[in-house]
Amino acid sequence: MTDPLFQRIAIIGIGLIGSSLARAIAEQKLAGEIAIFDASAEARAAAHELTLGQVVDSLAAAAKDADLVILATPIGAYADIGPALAPHLKKGAILTDVGSVKQAVIRDLGPHVPEGVHFIPGHPIAGTEHSGPRAGFADLFKGRWAIVTPVPGSDPTATAKLQALWSAVGSMVEVMEPAHHDQVLAITSHLPHLIAYTIVDTATQLETSTQSEVIKFSASGFRDFTRIAASDPTMWRDIFLNNREAVLEILGRFTEDLTAMQRAIRWGEGDKLFETFTRTRAVRRGIIDAKQA
Amino acid sequence: MTDPLFQRIAIIGIGLIGSSLARAIAEQKLAGEIAIFDASAEARAAAHELTLGQVVDSLAAAAKDADLVILATPIGAYADIGPALAPHLKKGAILTDVGSVKQAVIRDLGPHVPEGVHFIPGHPIAGTEHSGPRAGFADLFKGRWAIVTPVPGSDPTATAKLQALWSAVGSMVEVMEPAHHDQVLAITSHLPHLIAYTIVDTATQLETSTQSEVIKFSASGFRDFTRIAASDPTMWRDIFLNNREAVLEILGRFTEDLTAMQRAIRWGEGDKLFETFTRTRAVRRGIIDAKQA
Repeated sequence: MTDPLFQRIAIIGIGLIGSSLARAIAEQKLAGEIAIFDASAEARAAAHELTLGQVVDSLAAAAKDADLVILATPIGAYADIGPALAPHLKKGAILTDVGSVKQAVIRDLGPHVPEGVHFIPGHPIAGTEHSGPRAGFADLFKGRWAIVTPVPGSDPTATAKLQALWSAVGSMVEVMEPAHHDQVLAITSHLPHLIAYTIVDTATQLETSTQSEVIKFSASGFRDFTRIAASDPTMWRDIFLNNREAVLEILGRFTEDLTAMQRAIRWGEGDKLFETFTRTRAVRRGIIDAKQA
Repeated sequence: MTDPLFQRIAIIGIGLIGSSLARAIAEQKLAGEIAIFDASAEARAAAHELTLGQVVDSLAAAAKDADLVILATPIGAYADIGPALAPHLKKGAILTDVGSVKQAVIRDLGPHVPEGVHFIPGHPIAGTEHSGPRAGFADLFKGRWAIVTPVPGSDPTATAKLQALWSAVGSMVEVMEPAHHDQVLAITSHLPHLIAYTIVDTATQLETSTQSEVIKFSASGFRDFTRIAASDPTMWRDIFLNNREAVLEILGRFTEDLTAMQRAIRWGEGDKLFETFTRTRAVRRGIIDAKQA
């Protein structure tokens, strides 16, 4: 029998991603043991009931002897977790995370990482609109991308080991610069979520009679936005606060383009609308060809 | 054996909606015969090959003896179809359509409708991102809403017969004022499509290296917008040109709300973001409860 990839993996934060990872790691036998900590007693109780791993009562107890520590909390919590966790990290351990922003994570966690611990941030491009330990499932990462963003001085062997973990749970792995990650995610994920949240909120401010019709007739486009706008509010607040520059930059481009569309509608510029709507169709074909549809 | 609901139904325009209707009408035996005309010879050939009905070469041939005529072309074509079709409509026939805008349709078609013909516009809230006669399927309308917007003087018996057709193909039917329809659809359908088209177009203008990554990592939200932005360009150009006022009004509200979100991100107003993201979650629950998810 071969040794598992890690002796002890600690998962900090047992929401959708953390609990899916715990299930996938167990299913693929990637750890001798899985330690779980969550700041919420309710989440800890659920993790225990779901037998996701060995549930402990503190960051220290989770990190003790772990050779891989995975932060899977909203990224706004990292600034507090960093100093509390650091003294308990084992020499030679890998510290990673699953947050949707990478530069801010490096800013908040980097300074606390002790000498001899390998800090390699990461981000699985996977999720659903559901939250919490009961929403997770082992197949969440299958066929999806996981991005790993090593920092200057990251040990290549440790990076390879982290990549092996993501591959083993079914992901394709890409190594990327943290700043580039934040730009790409601003357009592929953060802006779409901001827009979906906003349009759904615009609808909630209509008169009550229209609101019920918006729900009734939502199948015509609106519905898809509500699914995205049902994502976890804490997680998304933290993402926007921590990827401010990249989000504001792409949002500026988007509003320029939207204003141009508004003008085309006002002035009846049918050719401009038709050209735009034809161009965007090609992007869909690209996504279907890339098997990400 | 009971008589079918209509002796002869003419379908003008055999794209996604027209061809789905032809299939559903045939499946439910709602017509003695189905006549089909499309301005495109290619679409006519496909309709013939798919045996969707009796394919004819002119509006006149389609309308001849039909007791129900359904316009299922992009609404921009109605202004030409109206005068060409009118002389061939049988006395007592019902003229309806499936367009996504209702006031402009009444403006363009209404003046041409001969005395004794029942003009009752309609709009099935159903569709996919695919276009053309081969994209249709009989179940498209099942469990979805169909809106019927009678005009002043519409005959209640004729309206009831049109409602019966939509019920028979599996839809739930709602009767609505045309102006109210255009407002509700502006928020549930037209604005979501405009935004989806715009964000996908914003992405196409990024540098080439980033573009390929946008496709690769689209599963994180962007993907859902590309599906909507793959809808038929002609149909959507016509919708925006013909529901201008309602779209510009709701777009104005949306951009105000988006600017407020932008400001909240710039100034780090986490509470405002969190409150908005919590409020929008409730709308999703409403849609799930209304079985439109």
